[in-house]
Amino acid sequence: MLRRTLFGLAPALVMAGTRRPWKEVERMIETGGFKGRLSVDDLPTPALLVDLDALDWNIAKMAAHCKQKGLALRPHGKTHKCPEIAKKLVAAGAVGACAAKLSEAEAFAKGGIGGLLVTTAVIGQHKIERAAALARIKPETILCVDNPRNAAELDEAARAAKLRLNVAIDLYVGNRTGIKTGAPAAALAKEIDGLKGLKLAGLQAYAGHAAHRNGFEARRELSRNVMATAVETKKLIEAAGIACPLLTGGSTGTYNIDCDIAGMTELQPGSFVFMDIDYARIGGPDGPVYKDFRHSLTVLTTVVSKPSDAEAVVDGGLKAFSTDKPFMPIAKGIEGIGFAWGGDEHGKLNLSKASRAVALGDRLEFVIPHCDPTVNLYDRMFGVRGQQVETCWAVTARGMSQ
Amino acid sequence: MLRRTLFGLAPALVMAGTRRPWKEVERMIETGGFKGRLSVDDLPTPALLVDLDALDWNIAKMAAHCKQKGLALRPHGKTHKCPEIAKKLVAAGAVGACAAKLSEAEAFAKGGIGGLLVTTAVIGQHKIERAAALARIKPETILCVDNPRNAAELDEAARAAKLRLNVAIDLYVGNRTGIKTGAPAAALAKEIDGLKGLKLAGLQAYAGHAAHRNGFEARRELSRNVMATAVETKKLIEAAGIACPLLTGGSTGTYNIDCDIAGMTELQPGSFVFMDIDYARIGGPDGPVYKDFRHSLTVLTTVVSKPSDAEAVVDGGLKAFSTDKPFMPIAKGIEGIGFAWGGDEHGKLNLSKASRAVALGDRLEFVIPHCDPTVNLYDRMFGVRGQQVETCWAVTARGMSQ
Repeated sequence: MLRRTLFGLAPALVMAGTRRPWKEVERMIETGGFKGRLSVDDLPTPALLVDLDALDWNIAKMAAHCKQKGLALRPHGKTHKCPEIAKKLVAAGAVGACAAKLSEAEAFAKGGIGGLLVTTAVIGQHKIERAAALARIKPETILCVDNPRNAAELDEAARAAKLRLNVAIDLYVGNRTGIKTGAPAAALAKEIDGLKGLKLAGLQAYAGHAAHRNGFEARRELSRNVMATAVETKKLIEAAGIACPLLTGGSTGTYNIDCDIAGMTELQPGSFVFMDIDYARIGGPDGPVYKDFRHSLTVLTTVVSKPSDAEAVVDGGLKAFSTDKPFMPIAKGIEGIGFAWGGDEHGKLNLSKASRAVALGDRLEFVIPHCDPTVNLYDRMFGVRGQQVETCWAVTARGMSQ
Repeated sequence: MLRRTLFGLAPALVMAGTRRPWKEVERMIETGGFKGRLSVDDLPTPALLVDLDALDWNIAKMAAHCKQKGLALRPHGKTHKCPEIAKKLVAAGAVGACAAKLSEAEAFAKGGIGGLLVTTAVIGQHKIERAAALARIKPETILCVDNPRNAAELDEAARAAKLRLNVAIDLYVGNRTGIKTGAPAAALAKEIDGLKGLKLAGLQAYAGHAAHRNGFEARRELSRNVMATAVETKKLIEAAGIACPLLTGGSTGTYNIDCDIAGMTELQPGSFVFMDIDYARIGGPDGPVYKDFRHSLTVLTTVVSKPSDAEAVVDGGLKAFSTDKPFMPIAKGIEGIGFAWGGDEHGKLNLSKASRAVALGDRLEFVIPHCDPTVNLYDRMFGVRGQQVETCWAVTARGMSQ
């Protein structure tokens, strides 16, 4: 804060070297040798920041919840794409990590994470070859399947590689991917049970539309209804004498709903580690704002133009924030700032109602509309406590959508 | 096409090795040794494809236009972020490349591109240190300035480094960054003229709101009006005896408007290399569709789930396409496909009016809503002619928003 004030009042002091030179900062970031010596004000913007106190708090809360409810926790890694955060979750009790795509799972495996569940079906010769290679390194990996032909192809590849691949049947409970619950899923389970190269781990039931349903009661009703069909399917498979131990699903929006559905064995929430504006607005049991987890993720920007007293332009636009939600970034620590997209590279601020003055060169932090696709824009995230930068973590699975 | 058909009809053939193994494809992609041997069907999806015929056509058209109009062409590299495309543009006659941010310019410089113009002001000690380092390697680099304090800081850094930095005054003509045209800009020009470390290259006037104004006549009127103020500012500066050779601006939407404004010396369009759905809808002189350039950029996806006859899910969602425009990706080569976002990882297709059947494992190409932020999601793009993959180019400046 001292430096920022000096910069605002006396640029010559900054130029004279108030901050350490960029070359030194760059070297510290590259090598990681900066504990306690690097300030948030030293970071090049736009930068992705993680408040480590809030992150730790969120992780501890979800881990304690699952432990108390007797459920496994396999947090979805598509949110953070960061092996270091996956390791923190495992240290807190998680059984592993979900990965949205095979290439994301490969990145986690390289980063030392086991207990992987790939939540999208692995389709086509090349992806199947890669899945078999992954299973050779991490034999406990579970792949999702929703189609008999894909199951047959996985089986053939597994037998050719002298492997047995764990598969979970992906159920159509979220209007997206999956096989229909009930008889179609049970028939697929029977087919899989007859394939020597595959082992049925159980079922995946992810209801994305329930996760974001506004209002706690409406969300509870929707999630209970759709998950009931998954529970029934599990019973149907077990009644046929086929072991079906796993029923994985749930989200940050339904973690405190799905945990009470008899038959669920595992939760796979992702966004709780960071939270975002979109999730905050879905409502909690006690009101319209969902407060179960803390906002730990922000984007740090710099004011790079000041066209008038009431306007400022920051260096974060469509390439610094995801834009799939109808919400704008919210400034942290200043009230009354209006944000509008200023194209690929800029955010336009309306300062007419701002609670404090904003000057050229000021560094502003913004809470983000949607965490997952925003994280996917960055190669690294900086873990901070207050103004101190403690860590720089590689977003290893950034761009791994294959 | 043969392989795709086989896969649809006889998966066993594919499993038996119709395609070369993934390890071989991966090695070919890594080393680049695949000319004429790699098919689009071999690429892992989602993948960013560039139709090289369309790209070459677009580049040739814009280069010929600028040559005919006697204007310099400095295409904006924030669109492609790819030194190989910047080199193609220079080979066609471009004087260099624009870069939105300093880190993007650094990436282009490392990729062998000169004639750089950094279109966002370089603010703060560290960025100024980096700009001076860039100017040492590429002395012709031009930096944008819109504030006297920033000019003074750049001057101090330049003199300390025994350099002279080229600067262009960024004018506020697009409701975003810049100093007001007329007297404020002329006063800044006078200040810069008095600073030994800086050399005034001229003016930048980028009117983003004009670029995307719908309807050719409305766009022409708007662009002419705002650019007139830039031209007047140039005259004002020159009338004060200060050399102001450069007036750079223009866009894919106004390249054929701004070229006829007396006083403009340079165009800096970006999107024309790829085109996108957003630009197609702004209208041309001959109708509601803007047809001056061809769509060269697509995202290739795979159908990874087929919940019903009328539904398919592809493996491209919010992390495979930018979502800042209110348009959906459009399938190439199939009519009547409805597209809806299926979360971070998936696109949901409505096939009820599709002109042909779509099966699990099919590979579908989509024309994209907005090119720049979509390119920013990928580490590489594949240059294709028909079904043949000719090149794999690194998107070197991907993520370089600093």
